[in-house]
Amino acid sequence: MQMHSDEIIVATHGRSTTEITSEIQSIVARSGTSAGLCNVFIHHTSASLILCENADPTVRSDLERFVSDLVPDGDARFAHVDEGPDDMPAHVRSILTQVSVSIPISGGRCSLGTWQGLYLWEHRHAAHQRRITVTVLGE
Amino acid sequence: MQMHSDEIIVATHGRSTTEITSEIQSIVARSGTSAGLCNVFIHHTSASLILCENADPTVRSDLERFVSDLVPDGDARFAHVDEGPDDMPAHVRSILTQVSVSIPISGGRCSLGTWQGLYLWEHRHAAHQRRITVTVLGE
Amino acid sequence: MQMHSDEIIVATHGRSTTEITSEIQSIVARSGTSAGLCNVFIHHTSASLILCENADPTVRSDLERFVSDLVPDGDARFAHVDEGPDDMPAHVRSILTQVSVSIPISGGRCSLGTWQGLYLWEHRHAAHQRRITVTVLGE
Repeated sequence: MQMHSDEIIVATHGRSTTEITSEIQSIVARSGTSAGLCNVFIHHTSASLILCENADPTVRSDLERFVSDLVPDGDARFAHVDEGPDDMPAHVRSILTQVSVSIPISGGRCSLGTWQGLYLWEHRHAAHQRRITVTVLGE
Repeated sequence: MQMHSDEIIVATHGRSTTEITSEIQSIVARSGTSAGLCNVFIHHTSASLILCENADPTVRSDLERFVSDLVPDGDARFAHVDEGPDDMPAHVRSILTQVSVSIPISGGRCSLGTWQGLYLWEHRHAAHQRRITVTVLGE
Repeated sequence: MQMHSDEIIVATHGRSTTEITSEIQSIVARSGTSAGLCNVFIHHTSASLILCENADPTVRSDLERFVSDLVPDGDARFAHVDEGPDDMPAHVRSILTQVSVSIPISGGRCSLGTWQGLYLWEHRHAAHQRRITVTVLGE
């Protein structure tokens, strides 16, 4: 077994989802690993990762609406407002989703389902540079 | 270290939980791995995985009731209704739970807590065939 | 590649968060692994793990308030009340967060973001002993 590690920086445009599936598949391909496990980890507490339906963009706008209602910006219950009304909601949204996702590798690629895409979900309204580490373990 | 990979197909009966602990334990046993990590990954966006209390089935019916209220079928906020009123709720429920779970292996078995069982949670009302990949890394 | 496994027991003081970052970093350091993946797994269904902002404790009190409102103790919808009004809410809170978290290792340490700390979140009101397994894979 071998290990390979790589890093990507994703420039977000504020609250939205950015598909990173092809970047991850490229790292797995370059690693030369045909079978194993690929871990994707985001080094932040106000952006997160989701494996989401990748065919109809409405799924992601519906998801955004649902989560915005569940964790409202400017919620009076939140005391942590240092960076504005979307500061604490971003942390909650991150905790209710994923910071670390492991995907099996088969045939030299992340073996995703037909409708699965991997997305970075920026939870802050401002644009950010988000750092992601990809760790590939396998043979 | 060695790697072993296997796949299972679970036939669900519509929205419900199906315990898959024994299937996963069998794959780990067959792999001959005594210590390491077992990753379980579901290749879908409208079914997911949970590690849940495995003694009292009421825990899972309470959980179903809670999540059904949190993400109601037919919610008028959802625009993605191609496959019916449970389509978008299934995606949200998947994202709020797990698609990928890693469990330590010790003594040739997944080292679960006394009350932990691994369940596939079907979020659609119709029965489906769900594909799961199990990746075992260890020695 | 090599594998290393260790266990820690955390004594909680009832519903609250306990930072375990330094315990995990110590295990990774002792393993002698410079690059790879560290999995942290909690063997329980009423306590969980979160990667949370580690600078302002208000983030965690806001998070507690949010989740307590979302999943109220004593909710009349819950039938599983064997161990009291916080029994079923503890299971739901566990399922909405993480039982297993994998973190990349770089330079002999878990490569966390500047503001990321790993916390055990006790969801029961009573104090408990919580068992965590740390699995380190790498070189």
